[in-house]
Amino acid sequence: MRRIKLTVAYDGTNYCGWQVQPNGITIEEVLNKKLSTLTKEDIRVIGASRTDSGVHALGNVAVFDTESTIPPERMALALNQKLPEDIVIVKSQEVPLSWHPRYQDNITKTYEYHIYNARTANPMKKRTSTFVYVPLDVEKMRKGAAYLVGEHDFASFCCIRTNTEDTVRRIDSLEVEERPCTEGDFSYREAEAKEIVVRVSGNGFLYNMVRIIAGTLIRVGRGFYEPEKVKEILEARVRTEAGVTAPPQGLVLMEIRYGEE
Amino acid sequence: MRRIKLTVAYDGTNYCGWQVQPNGITIEEVLNKKLSTLTKEDIRVIGASRTDSGVHALGNVAVFDTESTIPPERMALALNQKLPEDIVIVKSQEVPLSWHPRYQDNITKTYEYHIYNARTANPMKKRTSTFVYVPLDVEKMRKGAAYLVGEHDFASFCCIRTNTEDTVRRIDSLEVEERPCTEGDFSYREAEAKEIVVRVSGNGFLYNMVRIIAGTLIRVGRGFYEPEKVKEILEARVRTEAGVTAPPQGLVLMEIRYGEE
Repeated sequence: MRRIKLTVAYDGTNYCGWQVQPNGITIEEVLNKKLSTLTKEDIRVIGASRTDSGVHALGNVAVFDTESTIPPERMALALNQKLPEDIVIVKSQEVPLSWHPRYQDNITKTYEYHIYNARTANPMKKRTSTFVYVPLDVEKMRKGAAYLVGEHDFASFCCIRTNTEDTVRRIDSLEVEERPCTEGDFSYREAEAKEIVVRVSGNGFLYNMVRIIAGTLIRVGRGFYEPEKVKEILEARVRTEAGVTAPPQGLVLMEIRYGEE
Repeated sequence: MRRIKLTVAYDGTNYCGWQVQPNGITIEEVLNKKLSTLTKEDIRVIGASRTDSGVHALGNVAVFDTESTIPPERMALALNQKLPEDIVIVKSQEVPLSWHPRYQDNITKTYEYHIYNARTANPMKKRTSTFVYVPLDVEKMRKGAAYLVGEHDFASFCCIRTNTEDTVRRIDSLEVEERPCTEGDFSYREAEAKEIVVRVSGNGFLYNMVRIIAGTLIRVGRGFYEPEKVKEILEARVRTEAGVTAPPQGLVLMEIRYGEE
């Protein structure tokens, strides 16, 4: 018996999130089915991060145990031939049988939240970003973001539909980047289109935490909140998330880094 | 009666191209239907560029005539409320009744062809780029591209399924850009992912011409052709396109610029 670690990328648009559920197709379900076909065993993967419906990943992680003789590093190639186009195994490797993708010391997760900020929506970015037509002040967003870096009780940035007891997490970095937008130089767009990326790394995130952070920073960028309001929200430690959870399509789980790597 | 010019953007993945046809839904058909509903007239748009199935646009152009009292510049907003998410009217404006989107002096069209070049595919870029897993030599692609700039007979770069008599066109610029790929710095991708964009502007393009140019430059980048081979292909003036037409999903019609603008 061997344990194989998979690094999994997906466009989450057509899936009801990661976790197997009765009402729709999920990433976990597709992986279980295709791995079971490939190995002729009854495979159940264990995932690192249960991403929500519509959320994307370039580096989610899952493990499964198998008696298969397929070399671990070839498993990615074999599985990719069976998977639909919107799920890709980036890497496969053997790990110790005791290795669990959620219970490890020194886990660092990195997410990106993508905002397309222009006068009109871009249909080519609909699936992978949130459209905001009010011009956002990136400098203000950066000032607001700075209050969240470090170890804090993020109770205010957690969806109320959870029972998490411990809401303390550590954010190692939280950057608001303005990325060049190739369409921006065209006359008809009047040079105003930009892509704003909120990029955050930390030791773990509460349910909806990144989307609530993104939604709050969008309010700061619009001038609806002053940057200092982010500090007040954080210190309130009340689950006041209502109305500011940014939509799922802008979110990408970029990487899960394990301390030993 | 007024003539309205529309600047149209779309994700072409789910459409059988621009032009109305019996076997599937097209961009032109959707625009005709939604404009007819909006104006309560029988509207037929005239398009500037009949993009192929699966090809995208950020700046295609169409015109239509209407008695509607909706102010021309508000037509975009009104129409966007009726259109599906993957079609967006970027701009609407009144033009003279004699103005035709294909028959104008000094038309410059700009296309981009997007290539995702990495060891493994990126599911988030599947719809909007072509995946090439062999590392491409961008410098060689640039050398090959240089032979195509200027006024030439592009018969070798035209799909054989056309009856175009005049195959002379002028390419004003043809650049091969390497764009930063945000996933590239992650350990699991081994820093090898890059996005290569072939960006071409000219006074007009033959059927499949940009995709044949892209397919040919990919062969140069792979080392399958030497850059000088592009000159030979051009000078042969034979429709030898077979096998080198790059797939549609990488192509975007970026802009159509009219001389008077």
